[in-house]
Amino acid sequence: MTTGPITGSTKTYRVLPDGGRVPFRRVHLTTGDHLDLYDTSGPYTDARAAIDLDAGLPSRPGVVRDRGTQLQRARRGEITAEMAFVAAREGMPAELVRDEVARGRAVIPANHDHPESEPMIIGKAFAVKVNANIGNSAVTSSIAEEVDKMVWATRWGADTIMDLSTGRDIHETREWILRNSPVPVGTVPIYQALEKVGGDPTRLEWNLYRDTVIEQCEQGVDYMTVHAGVLLRHVPLTARRVTGIVSRGGSIMAAWMLAHQRESFLYEHFGELCEILARHDVTFSLGDGLRPGSIADANDAAQFAELRTLGELTTVAREHGVQVMTEGPGHVPMHKIVENVRLEEELCDEAPFYTLGPLTTDIAPAYDHITSGIGAAIIAAAGTAMLCYVTPKEHLGLPNRKDVKDGVITYKIAAHAADLAKGHPGAQQRDDALSKARFDFRWHDQFALALDPDTAREFHDETLPAEPAKTAHFCSMCGPKFCSMRISHDIRAEHGDRIPLPLTEATP
Amino acid sequence: MTTGPITGSTKTYRVLPDGGRVPFRRVHLTTGDHLDLYDTSGPYTDARAAIDLDAGLPSRPGVVRDRGTQLQRARRGEITAEMAFVAAREGMPAELVRDEVARGRAVIPANHDHPESEPMIIGKAFAVKVNANIGNSAVTSSIAEEVDKMVWATRWGADTIMDLSTGRDIHETREWILRNSPVPVGTVPIYQALEKVGGDPTRLEWNLYRDTVIEQCEQGVDYMTVHAGVLLRHVPLTARRVTGIVSRGGSIMAAWMLAHQRESFLYEHFGELCEILARHDVTFSLGDGLRPGSIADANDAAQFAELRTLGELTTVAREHGVQVMTEGPGHVPMHKIVENVRLEEELCDEAPFYTLGPLTTDIAPAYDHITSGIGAAIIAAAGTAMLCYVTPKEHLGLPNRKDVKDGVITYKIAAHAADLAKGHPGAQQRDDALSKARFDFRWHDQFALALDPDTAREFHDETLPAEPAKTAHFCSMCGPKFCSMRISHDIRAEHGDRIPLPLTEATP
Repeated sequence: MTTGPITGSTKTYRVLPDGGRVPFRRVHLTTGDHLDLYDTSGPYTDARAAIDLDAGLPSRPGVVRDRGTQLQRARRGEITAEMAFVAAREGMPAELVRDEVARGRAVIPANHDHPESEPMIIGKAFAVKVNANIGNSAVTSSIAEEVDKMVWATRWGADTIMDLSTGRDIHETREWILRNSPVPVGTVPIYQALEKVGGDPTRLEWNLYRDTVIEQCEQGVDYMTVHAGVLLRHVPLTARRVTGIVSRGGSIMAAWMLAHQRESFLYEHFGELCEILARHDVTFSLGDGLRPGSIADANDAAQFAELRTLGELTTVAREHGVQVMTEGPGHVPMHKIVENVRLEEELCDEAPFYTLGPLTTDIAPAYDHITSGIGAAIIAAAGTAMLCYVTPKEHLGLPNRKDVKDGVITYKIAAHAADLAKGHPGAQQRDDALSKARFDFRWHDQFALALDPDTAREFHDETLPAEPAKTAHFCSMCGPKFCSMRISHDIRAEHGDRIPLPLTEATP
Repeated sequence: MTTGPITGSTKTYRVLPDGGRVPFRRVHLTTGDHLDLYDTSGPYTDARAAIDLDAGLPSRPGVVRDRGTQLQRARRGEITAEMAFVAAREGMPAELVRDEVARGRAVIPANHDHPESEPMIIGKAFAVKVNANIGNSAVTSSIAEEVDKMVWATRWGADTIMDLSTGRDIHETREWILRNSPVPVGTVPIYQALEKVGGDPTRLEWNLYRDTVIEQCEQGVDYMTVHAGVLLRHVPLTARRVTGIVSRGGSIMAAWMLAHQRESFLYEHFGELCEILARHDVTFSLGDGLRPGSIADANDAAQFAELRTLGELTTVAREHGVQVMTEGPGHVPMHKIVENVRLEEELCDEAPFYTLGPLTTDIAPAYDHITSGIGAAIIAAAGTAMLCYVTPKEHLGLPNRKDVKDGVITYKIAAHAADLAKGHPGAQQRDDALSKARFDFRWHDQFALALDPDTAREFHDETLPAEPAKTAHFCSMCGPKFCSMRISHDIRAEHGDRIPLPLTEATP
C-alpha cells in the first residue's frame, strides 16, 4: 500500500471551532510560498499518522445520529458540523452550503455509521467531484487488493469510492473499505442481493433486497444506487437498441420484471426504502438502469422515460427527507450531451447529476478513460456535480492499480477543466501557480503542483535526469536554443523597459 | 520499424479511372462482413508491398507541375487527380471537394515535388484530421528514430506529419522523411534558418530565410508554418502575460524585431514568399506565434491582434493563388474555445483552422494529451479542420514511440468524436459496427474495429487469456453472472416475442 505525502507536499489541517480538522495538501514552492489544495487522501498522506488497517481510521467529531438527515436539518436552518466542514474545505460560505442542501441541489453523503469519512459535498455550486469504482468480480481480485485500490484512488484525488464487488465476501470486503475509507462510500445493494440468490435475477424478492439494504445502511454505506426508475413498461423501449440494457442493475430488474410480469419491487416499495435510508442519512443515487451503451442508443425513448420516473422518485425521496442524486449516461455523442443535463435539471428538480462519462465514441476500447474524459468535461461544465470515472479497462476487464490511477487522473482533469469553465472560485490559482513555475523554469515546483508529480518528473528525467537540469532554462523537447520561454525571458531581460505596455489595442 | 497489416485488417484499394489507387483498411469481421476504413498508413501496412527506405515510396500518378496550385485549378473549375483521389477517399462528391478548395475553405497540401504522398484534404466539410509532430532536438534522437516515428504515427492514423527537427542534420532528416512519407509533410522553415546562423535569432535575415524556404519547397515539403503575423507592435501586448511567448517561431521573430527595432521580415516579404510557395503548390500554415501558453493568457489582446493580421495575410496568399490554413491555440479553458473558431472564421474568411489542442488546464503535465484531447474534441466539433496532437511528454521532453502512439490515438478519438458531433456522413458506421460486435460478444471483431486492436486485446487477455474467452458472454469486469449484455440477450431470447415494440412513448 502506498502511503506518505505526495511528492512536494505535506498534509496540513485547518481546525474548526468544533474540533473538526479540515485537511489540505500544502504544496511547498521553492520560492518560499505555498499553495493549499483540496485533499481527499485522508491520513494515508500524513507523515505523522499511524496507519492501522485492522483498527480502521479514527472517527470524526460532531456526528449526530438522532436529528435527521442533512437535508432535514438544512431545511430547519441548521448548519451542521458536516456543513461547516465542507464549507471550510471548499472555501465557500456555510450559508450557501446549507441553502444548496436544503434546496436539494447539493448532497452531503454521510451515513451516521460511517464516522471515518471526511464530509464532502456534491452539487453544481461546488467543485466538480470524481467517483472511483473499485470492487472485485467473480473472476479476479482480493480484499487486500481492493482496500489498496481505495487508498490509491483517494491518493490521486477520488472524492468518493463505490464498492461494486460482486464476487465472494461482499460484506467483508465492504467492511474493510468502510472502516478505512476517508471518503464517502457508495454501493449498489442489488449486487449483494443477487449473490444471496445464487445469481438468478428471477429469484430476487423485496424482503431479501430490503434486508440487504438495512445491512449496508447499518454498516455505514453513504450512498446507494437504486435502479427504481426501470419500470416494466420501459423494457420494450429497449427492444430495438443496438446494445440493449447495459447497466447491471437495470438488466437484473428487467429480467425480474419480465419473468414475473410484475412492476419493479424497487419502485413499488420505494417509500419504504426512503424510510430506511432516512434513518441512517444514506443518500439515494437513483440509478440509470436504461442508460445508453452505445452512440446509437443515446438520448433515446427508454433513457428519457426512465429519467422522467427518476424525477417522480426524487420528489418522493425528498418528501421523506432523504438526500438524492440522479445518475446519468453512458455513451453519448458530444452534441447530445448538454440535453441530458437540461432534462435532468427539469425533470429531477436540479438534484445533483452524477454521470458515468459519457463516452463520446464507441471505437476506442482500451482508451475509454479518454473517450469518456472528453464527455465528462463537457457534461460537468454544463452542470453535472459528480463524474464517475471510467478506466482504460472499461468493456475489457477489471481495472488494476495502474488503470485506477489513469482513470482518477483523467477524471480530475475533466473535473478541473469544468471548474475553470464554470469560473469556480479559486480554481485557476493552481493553473496560474503551475504556469508561473513553468515560465520561471522552476521544474521542482512544476512537478509538485501537477496532478501527478511523480510521472511528470519521471517523464522529464527520461532525457535529462541530472539535478542541474531541474533549474535549466530548457528541456529536451526543444533543446536550449529553441526554448521559446527562454527567448521570452531574454526579451524581457534585454528590452523589458523598452516594451511599452498595451494601451490602444484590445481584444476584439 | 513496425510494418504489416493492422490486426484484423488487410489493405485494399479502390482504383480510379486515372490509375490512382485509393487505400482503405479493410476490417474483416467474423460474421463474413467487412468494413472499409479511411487509412493513412501507406504501403507499410500492405502485406504485399516491398518496403525499401533507401529507394523511398513509389510516386503516385497524375502529378501535374505546370498548371498552378490546387486552389488556382479549382477556381478554373478543374477537378484535379488529387481532388478525385480525396473525394474517393472521403466518400464525398468531387464537386464538393473542388468547390471547397476554390472557396479556400479546404486545402489539399500536395507539393508537386512530393509525389510519394497520398493526397488528402483539410477542411471543415471533411473528416477532422490529425497532425503528428516528430523531429529531433539538439538534446536527443536520431534520423532512424524519426523515420520510425513517422511510419509509426501514420500507422495509428496521423493524417499529416510535421518534421520539427532543430538539431543536426535537418536537411537529411527531412529528406528521409519526405521520400518515405505516405502523408503530407509540414515544416517550420525558421528552425532550419536559425540553425544556419548558429542559433542566434538576431542574426537572421530575409535572404537566408528565403533560401531556406526555396530549399524546402524543392525538397517536397507540403505545407509550411510561417509566423508572419507576429508584428513589432504586438510584442508589447505579451509583456504582462503569465507565460510570455510560447511559440518557438513567435519568440524567435519577437527577439529579431526587438533587437533590430524593425518590422518582421516575414511580414514585409510576404508577397515574395507567396510567389515561391505558389510555384510548388506549397500550402501556408499561418503560425500563431502569440498563442497562449497558459489558461491565464487565453484569448488575450496579443493572440487576437495576431489573428487579425493572419486574416490580412490569408487574403494576400489567396490573391497569389496559394492555399492557406490558419494555426490556433494553445492553452484555452473550455468556455473560451468556441470564440477562437468563430473569430478565425470571421477574420480569416473560413480558411481551415489548425489548432494545437487546446489544453483545457495547465495542471496536468505528463497527461497533456488528455488535457488537450478534451479541448481538441470541442474545437473540432466547432469547425476546426485539423488538430495538431499533443503527447504526454508536452512541456517535459521529446516524445518517444509510446508517446507518439498515445498522442495519435488520443487525437483520433477527439477527431472522431467531433465527426460524430458534426454528423459527418458515415462516421457512426464504425461505432455501430463495434457496438454490435460488443453486444454479440464477438471479441475478435471488437478488437479489430478498435482504434488500437493490439492494446484492446492485450487488456482483455490480462485476466482472460484463453481463446474460449474470445467468444465468452462476459469479461472479467463483471464476471459471468453480472454481465448486463448477457442478461439483455437472455431477456431477448426468452421474451423477445412478448416485448411489444414502443408505440406511444417518445423522446421528450
